[in-house]
Amino acid sequence: MSILVVGSVAFDSVKTPFGEREHILGGAATYFSVAASFFTDVRVVAVVGDDFGPDEETVFIERSVDITDLERIDGQKSFHWKGEYGYDLNVAQTLDTQLNVFAGFKPKLSSEARETPYLFLANIQPELQLEVRRQVGAKLVAADTMNYWIENARPELETTLKEVDILIINDTEARELAGEPNLVRSARRILTMGPKRLVVKRGEYGAVMFTENSYFSAPAYPLEDVFDPTGAGDSFAGGFMGYLAATGADDENAMRRAIIFGSVMASFDVEDFSCERLRRLTYEEIAGRARRLRQITHFEESDMPRRPM
Amino acid sequence: MSILVVGSVAFDSVKTPFGEREHILGGAATYFSVAASFFTDVRVVAVVGDDFGPDEETVFIERSVDITDLERIDGQKSFHWKGEYGYDLNVAQTLDTQLNVFAGFKPKLSSEARETPYLFLANIQPELQLEVRRQVGAKLVAADTMNYWIENARPELETTLKEVDILIINDTEARELAGEPNLVRSARRILTMGPKRLVVKRGEYGAVMFTENSYFSAPAYPLEDVFDPTGAGDSFAGGFMGYLAATGADDENAMRRAIIFGSVMASFDVEDFSCERLRRLTYEEIAGRARRLRQITHFEESDMPRRPM
Repeated sequence: MSILVVGSVAFDSVKTPFGEREHILGGAATYFSVAASFFTDVRVVAVVGDDFGPDEETVFIERSVDITDLERIDGQKSFHWKGEYGYDLNVAQTLDTQLNVFAGFKPKLSSEARETPYLFLANIQPELQLEVRRQVGAKLVAADTMNYWIENARPELETTLKEVDILIINDTEARELAGEPNLVRSARRILTMGPKRLVVKRGEYGAVMFTENSYFSAPAYPLEDVFDPTGAGDSFAGGFMGYLAATGADDENAMRRAIIFGSVMASFDVEDFSCERLRRLTYEEIAGRARRLRQITHFEESDMPRRPM
Repeated sequence: MSILVVGSVAFDSVKTPFGEREHILGGAATYFSVAASFFTDVRVVAVVGDDFGPDEETVFIERSVDITDLERIDGQKSFHWKGEYGYDLNVAQTLDTQLNVFAGFKPKLSSEARETPYLFLANIQPELQLEVRRQVGAKLVAADTMNYWIENARPELETTLKEVDILIINDTEARELAGEPNLVRSARRILTMGPKRLVVKRGEYGAVMFTENSYFSAPAYPLEDVFDPTGAGDSFAGGFMGYLAATGADDENAMRRAIIFGSVMASFDVEDFSCERLRRLTYEEIAGRARRLRQITHFEESDMPRRPM
């Protein structure tokens, strides 16, 4: 089944300890759709300016991502994010954000878009997420958000969350949303806000998934060369939703495998700037890392050796 | 088979967001031996002052920990550590350290101690670790250390490491020892320093284990109530070594199960001050959390659903 994603298609200027790039293709919806496109059909709802040219378009077209619902506005610029990472690649420092075309964005969905069974609301204004959510009669809705909206648009975010099945956010966002330092307690609180499932991304520490009565912990793929973490979370969400949409399954086991494929897609994303590594990916590489994630977590149960006392 | 541990038996004054305790029993060797005592026989090499009384002795005796090699010095005080934790329970702030009896400690091992097959060198001066290591013809030697020794006694630490089979340290210590921000690269470097196996403790994110050609990632047990993280790393090492000594196995699978039991013992330790929770533990509780750690990491392998393009 196919996926609709709404979120930013943008340009990024990124500096990491390993290099620097100006004005490269970025945006949550970009990373998400390229990652998910290895699993199933993807359609993007977003807006770009006239700086979005044939080179950027190629990234979507070569992955057969449907950009019919990608709006273009002449005489304006695309969303632009400028950020920097230090040696602790888990933390991005935002230097500048220019909403540009996104400031007045009112998504108008095509009738095909409205009928997409899987919907991902990438990290944008909660009102925009809600507007799209209400236009799409999806079977499964997942969403991301960020500290900025938790702090500055909490009522709108809470309204949106009521209509979301799976929330996919990072560690500090989960604690901030719940107002609680302990992650397990945070999860319990968030699961009363609407989502029936919470996925918490923890960078190099992997990801964990909560429902009211289940808990799953998955490692990150061990990497020697992390080049640029931008887009890791969105690539994760792309692999996760891609797997679910491709299989149509929604039981706990399928959700766990979806987390593994999310972790795999994130691990490739960080190996190069923009979505360059994702663009070069093969199915064999994806399947190989998924198999390896199983090897590195596998152990056989054994009885506890009890000391006779 | 039995274990010998050398390290501190001490008094701690600890403050966490959930409470405060003055002069409670602590020390790496204390936590280690109480945790390991659930699996096998343990003997402690350490030194205490005359403030170590019957109440403290009881903690060892009730767990049948052999304290024949625990030296007592009249007219002096035991090692004392004062520390504080904020809401980020992963980071302890040391407010005061008084070596007291440990300042001039020269371990004199009994002949039984010298023949112990499993040896754990808890976090103390690397010279002391080496002195004990050379007196014991152990089958398996594991060690811990800390940033202080990495920074202030590096040559001595490097000498000790050459005679250690398994190094069990935390995340930041591994990066600092290797002088490298990436953990996978750090591990590769550390595995050229002597140890053939590296276990990296990551607090609430679990633990990972490296050899030259294997990698294992284990989660922490998910807890809603973390009360005092003091001793978690030593309880982890106690469960890990306890399992290995009890089974006598040293293959990769056994090492992985040992990590799981280490993770379980750490998860209990943090639920109360000092080793109070460990003292109340039952075999059933330990076995139960080990089983649960398998459930929360388990997933079935599946083929990657490949999108036809």
